[in-house]
Amino acid sequence: MPLRSGVRTSASAETSGDGVPRTAAYPFAERTSLLEGSEVRALFAVASRPEVVSLAGGMPFVSALPTELITDAMNRVVHDRGSQALQYGSGQGRPELREQILDVMALEGIRAHADDIVVTTGSQHALDLVSRLFLDPGDVVLAEGPSYVTAIVVFRSYQADVDHVPMDEHGIVPEALREHITALKTQGRRIKLLYTVPNFSNPAGVTLSAARREEVLAIAKEHDILVLEDNPYGLLYFDAPPPSALRSLPETRDGVVYLGTFSKTLAPGFRVGWAVAPKAIREKLLLANEAAILSPSMFTQLIISEYLTTSDWKGQIATFRDIYRERRDAMLDALETNLPGLSWTRPDGGFYVWLTLPEGINSKEMLPRAVENLVAYTPGTAFYANGDGADFIRLAFCYPEPERVREGIVRLADTISAEHGMDSVAAMQDRTAS
Amino acid sequence: MPLRSGVRTSASAETSGDGVPRTAAYPFAERTSLLEGSEVRALFAVASRPEVVSLAGGMPFVSALPTELITDAMNRVVHDRGSQALQYGSGQGRPELREQILDVMALEGIRAHADDIVVTTGSQHALDLVSRLFLDPGDVVLAEGPSYVTAIVVFRSYQADVDHVPMDEHGIVPEALREHITALKTQGRRIKLLYTVPNFSNPAGVTLSAARREEVLAIAKEHDILVLEDNPYGLLYFDAPPPSALRSLPETRDGVVYLGTFSKTLAPGFRVGWAVAPKAIREKLLLANEAAILSPSMFTQLIISEYLTTSDWKGQIATFRDIYRERRDAMLDALETNLPGLSWTRPDGGFYVWLTLPEGINSKEMLPRAVENLVAYTPGTAFYANGDGADFIRLAFCYPEPERVREGIVRLADTISAEHGMDSVAAMQDRTAS
Repeated sequence: MPLRSGVRTSASAETSGDGVPRTAAYPFAERTSLLEGSEVRALFAVASRPEVVSLAGGMPFVSALPTELITDAMNRVVHDRGSQALQYGSGQGRPELREQILDVMALEGIRAHADDIVVTTGSQHALDLVSRLFLDPGDVVLAEGPSYVTAIVVFRSYQADVDHVPMDEHGIVPEALREHITALKTQGRRIKLLYTVPNFSNPAGVTLSAARREEVLAIAKEHDILVLEDNPYGLLYFDAPPPSALRSLPETRDGVVYLGTFSKTLAPGFRVGWAVAPKAIREKLLLANEAAILSPSMFTQLIISEYLTTSDWKGQIATFRDIYRERRDAMLDALETNLPGLSWTRPDGGFYVWLTLPEGINSKEMLPRAVENLVAYTPGTAFYANGDGADFIRLAFCYPEPERVREGIVRLADTISAEHGMDSVAAMQDRTAS
Repeated sequence: MPLRSGVRTSASAETSGDGVPRTAAYPFAERTSLLEGSEVRALFAVASRPEVVSLAGGMPFVSALPTELITDAMNRVVHDRGSQALQYGSGQGRPELREQILDVMALEGIRAHADDIVVTTGSQHALDLVSRLFLDPGDVVLAEGPSYVTAIVVFRSYQADVDHVPMDEHGIVPEALREHITALKTQGRRIKLLYTVPNFSNPAGVTLSAARREEVLAIAKEHDILVLEDNPYGLLYFDAPPPSALRSLPETRDGVVYLGTFSKTLAPGFRVGWAVAPKAIREKLLLANEAAILSPSMFTQLIISEYLTTSDWKGQIATFRDIYRERRDAMLDALETNLPGLSWTRPDGGFYVWLTLPEGINSKEMLPRAVENLVAYTPGTAFYANGDGADFIRLAFCYPEPERVREGIVRLADTISAEHGMDSVAAMQDRTAS
């Protein structure tokens, strides 16, 4: 079996077990006991076997990028500004790139100043650095349930607790948010952040409605909770654009830290993302960035700048939209055809569908058998800090070609059918997503 | 005056002062109050003015790299493996690059396995991640006095205390190390790490002797203190290679985490470094790396791999050695000529000379006047966590051409002379480095 199933809950030095000398003599910091591998992590090995249709990892389809665009940009950068590209740079990132990031964010209604931006090593590092700035042990982070797996890993690694607020097809539920805040405050807990992926969320594929955006921001403001808006997918809409970013509302801009990235609109291999933060936070964020890495890669920043200057980057994003829309359609069609009794979300953008399993099937336990059937997915438990999610699976349609997506769903349906011990998938109990 | 003089000791949100709305409503984590800008940081702005001879920043002279080497490697990578270069990768780094790193480290006597290596965003990020794994608030890190400025920033940012152990021209003094450990243990302090830059240290330019390497390792082992060996400069020796790395001694390999980088032997703009760690530590390091950035840049890793495969990288390092040797010679000659009464270290490699000022001159206070005289340096106080170092300055000879190095020293001598209020620099009190 090529998979370790499940989250590793106590990978302490003493129990990592294989006869190699232990580091018991070198005790880790307390926080390190909470640093755990995610289930997505174990899936990478599986996903790389070519015979497996991987609906697991959220890898963008970078083959859709014309390589001339990249090579042309690269060659101009090294030829014209080679010694700058190879050198250390500013910890905040290149001013030129930060100006261009303003143009990218303007597409989602955000008005900011280049000074407000800190360029980071993917938006993941911005997420890590903001957590580092704000989270003391025992602090609480409010997050959608389900929520992005590696955000949960980061929050926990700073010894914070993640409290999942229910969401429905319109995103996080404001009334539930209020109730969770009240309950936590009654318990004397300190809530530091509200973490949200408002557009085509990972993993649920759900978008926060415009009305709820205002309401969520008002609730956060009322309770002095900083909103951490993580928006990797906003420009990858399939029909209409999503509502404007939370950060776009001027009255709340001091209460929101916004995270963006080039990983989905260009390529993750460059590791370039950014944070937009109010001045007092941004100053600390910059110091944290410098302490962590001195400066983001000048080489990749310059290449992205050159690409944005000389290529039709908006046209390229439109191309990505077309590709992902076709795959989303393939997945939804195949689900209708092969798993008619089940329910799932219908994303208007992004990479993911969130599927509710028939009662009695555990997504984590089923995974090894799915892989035997040559299809991989991510169990829902990866997206909860509290062990919930066994009834759900995340299906990523971003990477395989449409025909492979269909084939993957057929194999998944076979796996679920066998798991259920039933003759007909159609007879499965119909359940709606909670 | 273009400089802020001195370390910022309390840059809290409330006091950052300019009328912009404050984040008092969003309290930072406790550790964030200790996240401070370094003096080196403030110097970047100064160093970039072309009329100033900067002996401040430790920027490698990347213009010595033939750009064809880089462009050829880039183009082959994007042409042959573009979709891999643009994608997410393994959190541990590419296996091929890790194999090549073994060849680089073999030059310094290190035998390891590719599995022992975690590729990081420069070795700075390895330093940050190791600190994150090991440092609880109140822990102590032993470090040379003086020590690398951004290591101090990192240790303090995890609420650890840095205890500086005296060094002389042969590196850290073993007897002093024993005394410091005993004193700290008597106080009930928990010592987690011994941080050292054993070769051509930053900032002192001093190399730990072979005999002391064994002794320091024995002391660390005796007291269960993990050694963090940071070796950016080891291959940039001017005459003979330095003694083999601390990590090269087989009996101590479980007690050492070794940090290496391509920033000085190739270019910092790629942000590729690495850590070599015993298995139990490396497993956590990998998880910490994934939590922080998901995976190091595939794009820059592939380019470096291609460069190492197809170029005479050892010849390029020899070229760097020749360049830096010439600049070191220029600096030492100019110091002899212009500041005959003072004392300084005589590095056998690396980037830095450490100069002792005449009694009564404060390196931090003198800096604005040096910049008026169009020369910049780093005040010694930057390299101590405890406010020491006002008698010293770090002079970096790595970046300016030899003639500019000489000019910089002439300007520095004028500045010191004026500061001292004396007619003749030769009359200055002769002091030896403590």
